[in-house]
Amino acid sequence: MLLCYFQLPDLQQYLIVMKGYPIMTKLNVSNTSRRTFLKGASLTVGSAALSGLLVACGSSTTNAPTAPTSDSHDMTAMPATAGGGMTADQMDAMHEAGVKAFVGGVKTVGTGNQPLTPRIEKGVKIFELTCKKTPFEVTAGQMVDALTYNGQVPGPEIRVTEGDTVRVVVTNALADQSTAIHFHGVMVPNKMDGVPFVTQPPIKPGQTFTYEFVAKNPGSHMYHAHHNSTMQVGQGLLGAFIIEPKDKAADPKYDLEHTLILNDQLGGFTINGKGFPATAALTAKLGQKLRIRYMNEGQMIHPMHLHGLPQLVFAKDGWNLPQPYKCDTINVAPGERWDVIVDCTEVGVWAFHCHILAHAESAQGMYGMVTALIIQ
Amino acid sequence: MLLCYFQLPDLQQYLIVMKGYPIMTKLNVSNTSRRTFLKGASLTVGSAALSGLLVACGSSTTNAPTAPTSDSHDMTAMPATAGGGMTADQMDAMHEAGVKAFVGGVKTVGTGNQPLTPRIEKGVKIFELTCKKTPFEVTAGQMVDALTYNGQVPGPEIRVTEGDTVRVVVTNALADQSTAIHFHGVMVPNKMDGVPFVTQPPIKPGQTFTYEFVAKNPGSHMYHAHHNSTMQVGQGLLGAFIIEPKDKAADPKYDLEHTLILNDQLGGFTINGKGFPATAALTAKLGQKLRIRYMNEGQMIHPMHLHGLPQLVFAKDGWNLPQPYKCDTINVAPGERWDVIVDCTEVGVWAFHCHILAHAESAQGMYGMVTALIIQ
Amino acid sequence: MLLCYFQLPDLQQYLIVMKGYPIMTKLNVSNTSRRTFLKGASLTVGSAALSGLLVACGSSTTNAPTAPTSDSHDMTAMPATAGGGMTADQMDAMHEAGVKAFVGGVKTVGTGNQPLTPRIEKGVKIFELTCKKTPFEVTAGQMVDALTYNGQVPGPEIRVTEGDTVRVVVTNALADQSTAIHFHGVMVPNKMDGVPFVTQPPIKPGQTFTYEFVAKNPGSHMYHAHHNSTMQVGQGLLGAFIIEPKDKAADPKYDLEHTLILNDQLGGFTINGKGFPATAALTAKLGQKLRIRYMNEGQMIHPMHLHGLPQLVFAKDGWNLPQPYKCDTINVAPGERWDVIVDCTEVGVWAFHCHILAHAESAQGMYGMVTALIIQ
Repeated sequence: MLLCYFQLPDLQQYLIVMKGYPIMTKLNVSNTSRRTFLKGASLTVGSAALSGLLVACGSSTTNAPTAPTSDSHDMTAMPATAGGGMTADQMDAMHEAGVKAFVGGVKTVGTGNQPLTPRIEKGVKIFELTCKKTPFEVTAGQMVDALTYNGQVPGPEIRVTEGDTVRVVVTNALADQSTAIHFHGVMVPNKMDGVPFVTQPPIKPGQTFTYEFVAKNPGSHMYHAHHNSTMQVGQGLLGAFIIEPKDKAADPKYDLEHTLILNDQLGGFTINGKGFPATAALTAKLGQKLRIRYMNEGQMIHPMHLHGLPQLVFAKDGWNLPQPYKCDTINVAPGERWDVIVDCTEVGVWAFHCHILAHAESAQGMYGMVTALIIQ
Repeated sequence: MLLCYFQLPDLQQYLIVMKGYPIMTKLNVSNTSRRTFLKGASLTVGSAALSGLLVACGSSTTNAPTAPTSDSHDMTAMPATAGGGMTADQMDAMHEAGVKAFVGGVKTVGTGNQPLTPRIEKGVKIFELTCKKTPFEVTAGQMVDALTYNGQVPGPEIRVTEGDTVRVVVTNALADQSTAIHFHGVMVPNKMDGVPFVTQPPIKPGQTFTYEFVAKNPGSHMYHAHHNSTMQVGQGLLGAFIIEPKDKAADPKYDLEHTLILNDQLGGFTINGKGFPATAALTAKLGQKLRIRYMNEGQMIHPMHLHGLPQLVFAKDGWNLPQPYKCDTINVAPGERWDVIVDCTEVGVWAFHCHILAHAESAQGMYGMVTALIIQ
Repeated sequence: MLLCYFQLPDLQQYLIVMKGYPIMTKLNVSNTSRRTFLKGASLTVGSAALSGLLVACGSSTTNAPTAPTSDSHDMTAMPATAGGGMTADQMDAMHEAGVKAFVGGVKTVGTGNQPLTPRIEKGVKIFELTCKKTPFEVTAGQMVDALTYNGQVPGPEIRVTEGDTVRVVVTNALADQSTAIHFHGVMVPNKMDGVPFVTQPPIKPGQTFTYEFVAKNPGSHMYHAHHNSTMQVGQGLLGAFIIEPKDKAADPKYDLEHTLILNDQLGGFTINGKGFPATAALTAKLGQKLRIRYMNEGQMIHPMHLHGLPQLVFAKDGWNLPQPYKCDTINVAPGERWDVIVDCTEVGVWAFHCHILAHAESAQGMYGMVTALIIQ
């Protein structure tokens, strides 16, 4: 048994197992493979941590089928050659199961991006964040040990209004790592910029650090770790930081909004921390105008394609464009935010996914960066 | 002999062979390597299927040189260390051979993107598509088993006019997989959106399904499989869906047009299904205005660089931009379409290629996503 | 001992060493790993060449710790499990060392992008370039054998004014490869376009070729090898070609400028040929307007994020946009150039880095595509 675990510079991490010869299995997103590997390798690393890293993994053709699990991608009736050895009906059944699970709603542990209500003292909006390791379920059965703000992935949504004085009190409850927060896109005084040894000392385990600044530039921004960030952001230390404009007339009119935080590290390809079918659908009523705030906290581009209806792109990184333009596929790069308006002119369940198809569908069905806009 | 075959999440698939030690061969696009591998590994998978997957493959330095093949990249005089052991003259000869083959025209099996003439019944334009497995030659000697619409890769071009009622009758002649068609970018009623178990049942092998809708939004769109799509689109089930505007005054004026469908799965890096030198040159006359419709059906970005002449970008995903802008390198992400105008103001053979150089050239010469604009 | 050396199609090159079992080391940018590998593998390839290729490499857990080196990422006190086995203090110390080295200034061999003064004959601006192999230090202790123009990586900056007649005399002093120069983005007559066997014969070792043209289209352009270009550009044959407009009124006003040439081949992730902490800081005074010219000569996108201050994007590939727009993260694709203005309204040291975090930071500290804008 030879194991090779390596990390590509785009931070995708791969596990490859080569056992005997010849091994010629198509490695795909398949829990059969994952579990076979985990069992065979007697890893001391927990399955949860691994599943967050494991994107593509192959199994030996000589491995016996493994026991059922609760993972929606684990189709225990499937032979190790899943994807190659299926009949059309078998494959369709797996696809249908995923869609049904999504429509029915998948219960998973942990919900991110929940609004955080500030405490107000002398006019200052005070938000408290605690960094800690928290079990988090990416999709049914796929538990990961996340690094979280207040137990959430993504961290709680911080929302203020232009001109507000904002105080963010950060406590580091991680056991073994310092941290710091960078308010990505927010124009802060330099000493509030969150870069250890450049603008502040790192926040050691057990310590608390207070950021304070006036929210100057409205728009869709982010906050995330800026220390060992490839790992810390990758494992969950990220969230939305939204500054509402004082004068809303500068933005297009909209009736409701959704924030979609894209990621590709913890637990694979996710929207707001969850992989399909555990992703939440966006809902709207016919005739409504929906604002979507895209934020990419991952390491790869994600060209998000909404079926059926165009997206009016009107802001980049929180700055309104001089002239909005329409598209149906918006390429969101790491660190970018894009704001769009969808005019909900047609009822139905509209698929909505990353158009790097490998981020969205395998032979076993849709997974990862897939959700839907449901217009009623 | 240890073989490791794996698939990265961007869907690029790699074959690695490790035999004895030390193996320290630069793995590159080289048929010597491919064939050595295929021979050494006694694979039961056909060469055609593999060549569609094989992007980078290495050979042991202890392998004997292999027999000549017809592949333009197979330089049988080359030692296994090709790229490292070549003289400048040897390398130049290989580069020259590729250019000469391109200029001379490479005959390959299969041509995609051919206009499909509709049958018209009671004012409805009826297009018939049959999904089937078809041998397809990506470049000379590189045969793949493609999944095709009507035997073509890309599938036949469907072109209608804004306001047309369009009927697309799809027959699934695949042996082992269901399918469905999504009209990417086209505003259709939800039940015509092509997502199995969401808007329709999958089209089982042997079944026929009929899509019908009014072509509402003009522009450069696409149609492709939306079931097991990473594999089905990757293997060829994709095509251009162009809706001409009723009023052409909305578009810039142009004298001729070319559609460039980019892909990076079946047979490696391709333009309209072919890899250099089997790619077709674009031709125009001095003074003409050329419209190019870029469509990315692959899994990676492809920043397309035209030498010598700027591109005026005027539409994104079929929607005209409020203000066109100029560039020479246009980054096309998966799922995106971009329309540009090239003002052919200078005669010559202008190289035209993806500027991820590894998608376009190796030590053995240009390959993959390379073509030319020839202005006479 | 099994070695697997392979090249992904994006041209990132990886070394993997697998020795015994189980090997389960996180492979990261670590000279300990590199040197262990080099020692263990008895490679005949020089360390310098390898370090240019080696992005991620793992060591066996059974390997003994290696001797200290001068590389800023070589933390010899670190166990092989670096990143996993560190205390917070150990990790912080490594991060601090990197920042201190950057602030203090890292002396490395070789500086690129230096202005090249033309010789003027009869009104023609004559630039002489010699292609040659040159040792180059990417960051302290990381020597690579670069392919250079005039010994520089990036090659010397060529800067002319719109309307100038420009002559570039290229001598190929490479031992074993022909070459040619393409003036990327510059509108030249076809025979000056630099594509061997298409517009000119290759420039053989020892030969000289002269390019001559009138600089027609102002803006931020590039020049680079267009023969075996994946390798030649990857190893350093690239530079900035800037054409100043005759009438500067067309550009926004600015007080100073910096060119940032991004790369991801030679020596890993670099800005102007150097990796953090050897990257040069950008400096400006409070109130100044800074023009930044981004140029991507690599194989991957690099979304460049400047902390604290927005970037006004006003030109793409040298062509001014009809309407500039603001952002804080600008996604630069291979072959693209983007020009922005930063209004230096806030003093401080502002981190400035690629937001694909794996291009910028590991558990051992920041590295690669990281610099800072220092406003005084």
